[in-house]
Amino acid sequence: MDYKSYFADRLRDLREEGRYRVFCDLERRTGKFPKAINHRDGETHEVTIWCSNDYMGMGMHPEVVGAIADAVSQCGAGAGGTRNISGTTHHHVMLEEVLADWHQKESALVFTSGYVANLTTLMTLGQQIPDLVIFSDALNHNSMIEGVRHSRAPKKIFRHNDPADLDRLLSEYPKATPKLVAFESVYSMDGDIAPIADICDVAEKHGALTFLDEVHAVGMYGERGSGVAERDGVADRIDIVQATMGKAIGCIGGYIAGDKDLVDFVRSFGAGFIFTTSLPPGIAAGACASIKHLSEHNELRIRHQERAATLKRRLREMNLPVMDSVSHIVPVLVGDAGLCKQASDLLLTRHHIYVQPINYPTVPRGTERLRITPTPLHDDELMDHLVAALLDVWSTLGINQQAA
Amino acid sequence: MDYKSYFADRLRDLREEGRYRVFCDLERRTGKFPKAINHRDGETHEVTIWCSNDYMGMGMHPEVVGAIADAVSQCGAGAGGTRNISGTTHHHVMLEEVLADWHQKESALVFTSGYVANLTTLMTLGQQIPDLVIFSDALNHNSMIEGVRHSRAPKKIFRHNDPADLDRLLSEYPKATPKLVAFESVYSMDGDIAPIADICDVAEKHGALTFLDEVHAVGMYGERGSGVAERDGVADRIDIVQATMGKAIGCIGGYIAGDKDLVDFVRSFGAGFIFTTSLPPGIAAGACASIKHLSEHNELRIRHQERAATLKRRLREMNLPVMDSVSHIVPVLVGDAGLCKQASDLLLTRHHIYVQPINYPTVPRGTERLRITPTPLHDDELMDHLVAALLDVWSTLGINQQAA
Repeated sequence: MDYKSYFADRLRDLREEGRYRVFCDLERRTGKFPKAINHRDGETHEVTIWCSNDYMGMGMHPEVVGAIADAVSQCGAGAGGTRNISGTTHHHVMLEEVLADWHQKESALVFTSGYVANLTTLMTLGQQIPDLVIFSDALNHNSMIEGVRHSRAPKKIFRHNDPADLDRLLSEYPKATPKLVAFESVYSMDGDIAPIADICDVAEKHGALTFLDEVHAVGMYGERGSGVAERDGVADRIDIVQATMGKAIGCIGGYIAGDKDLVDFVRSFGAGFIFTTSLPPGIAAGACASIKHLSEHNELRIRHQERAATLKRRLREMNLPVMDSVSHIVPVLVGDAGLCKQASDLLLTRHHIYVQPINYPTVPRGTERLRITPTPLHDDELMDHLVAALLDVWSTLGINQQAA
Repeated sequence: MDYKSYFADRLRDLREEGRYRVFCDLERRTGKFPKAINHRDGETHEVTIWCSNDYMGMGMHPEVVGAIADAVSQCGAGAGGTRNISGTTHHHVMLEEVLADWHQKESALVFTSGYVANLTTLMTLGQQIPDLVIFSDALNHNSMIEGVRHSRAPKKIFRHNDPADLDRLLSEYPKATPKLVAFESVYSMDGDIAPIADICDVAEKHGALTFLDEVHAVGMYGERGSGVAERDGVADRIDIVQATMGKAIGCIGGYIAGDKDLVDFVRSFGAGFIFTTSLPPGIAAGACASIKHLSEHNELRIRHQERAATLKRRLREMNLPVMDSVSHIVPVLVGDAGLCKQASDLLLTRHHIYVQPINYPTVPRGTERLRITPTPLHDDELMDHLVAALLDVWSTLGINQQAA
């Protein structure tokens, strides 16, 4: 086989579809967020980032940066091993205590990423609990889909955020059959939020474990910031909460929290946990500092929600097609991959605004969009600039202003 | 189902088999490696680490620690997004250039871990190249096994490090069938090294791509330290080299390097690359500094090999059962899970030496071992202490001194 030609052909197809991804080469700078330097064609320009998942700007917070710098100076760079073979440091132990306390669970377990936390936990439970059937929301993230798929446990997909459909599917199995319901709180591309209490009602009725992905919610919802389950007063009804330290917490890494033996079971049998170098101790220290700050500063969350609500209102006032969202995420519909890329390029080159185009397979074809994520650090002036720039781009490219 | 009892029962079984893992709670300290502080039952003791995969002590090197501290102060903690959505920083771009140059390849791609690099690359190629058959060494690492398995491509397992057996299996398919041969250079539990040139001969004869995992070799073999393929003068015959920045490089993260379009193909279609937050820019900066230092200091590699050879010789002189190893890894056979754990515990409590027991499933049952990894920083005095401690433990527990 001519491998070279095959790879080249597949890449050419992506380019022709407008789906070939070009990464922005950014220089983040502490104290400047959401501004950054963009490197492009040998030149540099200051741009405003409007699509970061550093949702609260904590990746730039002096307490987080300071905690990492201190820990790296004291403990060095990497952990030096898997968690089992010399790679558990005191910072890991402390971080797992902080996470368990935050979610009011007995125990927590840290993974190298949220992706690996989902993949490994769902794979491990699906492989190791005999006869387990997994019920998975239709819009779950790729990491959950892969975890369920690789476990080779039987799976049933329920309609997105639809407890009645879940009830119908669960009813097909006897109560004694082991079951797990896997879903997210905030769905990051549409910005909608699951009816967690209703899903828990249905799961409990059928004796199913609940697995809730709060990666786009931790730090941002609930009085102490531990997520939508806390906000809704249902955290104790979730058997396994999963989240990331790479978004609102501003670092990297994922975790689960739950009952002691359940967490210990995943720790003991999860290949993706066992056979990999553990997170650097400095990252663990930074995440601890970030969670402490976030849990104590609810006013950041109030400001964050206000910024998102204000932006949605202002875009709607201009007849820009904001998609339905009840969260901090502000998706604006374009509906075509090529046009979406052009809109993003024009925002960057003409207005020095960076919003990455979101195309298939991240979202379904025909729903290509600009996904805007205002943080507490995006002030009114930056918002004025963004709204004017979007109007100019929509007008220049002739995008439908009321498509959403 | 009573989930709680099920988890508790499975954990009890592990304890009864002596396979329940207890993690050492360590405080690494810059300037002190291989010494560290061990937290245990509320007390702390200074211990010597003899089982770290920070093989060259680079995780503690002032140039690496300094590069991370500087980058964190300038750019903050996390990257703030996936590589595609605001998470590519200039440090990532530079790191990929450094890695490609180190391996003398056109291009490189960074993943969050070596585990994810193997899993994602093998899955992507296995799923996306029609009719691909994967030929995998019998002792490949879990991350490669999972990648091959999840790709659902047909797979053939060849006998460990056996080019003749590989040739036999490849001969079962027409030359036109797409094929990939996946293997490692240094196998980390036994310390043996693949006959890379011979495997490449066979792969070329049958028109197969070669995928070489050098995670336990980068930084440690070859004049410029890029691995065994460099040492053996066969780097240009490897289509995809995969490695980690979490071991000899002293940080975290994984990567592949190869032809531009091949790497771009994995970048464009690899779910485990696309849907996850990218490495912190500080880690990318630290890895760059580490690779620069390692590539310029071959004397570290000479010292490293001398330390391993000396330790093997000294253990053999004392009739301690060193297993065959032609690399820097020094495995000492125990052959029983419970005894292996006891030996490790006694080394720690009586001699303040930390060597984690290696039990099933990491190694086959009956070959449980202590896996010792001398670094250039383990001096003669530390080695005297280790040899005496092992003799004491072997004698106390009545372990066979000539089992290997």
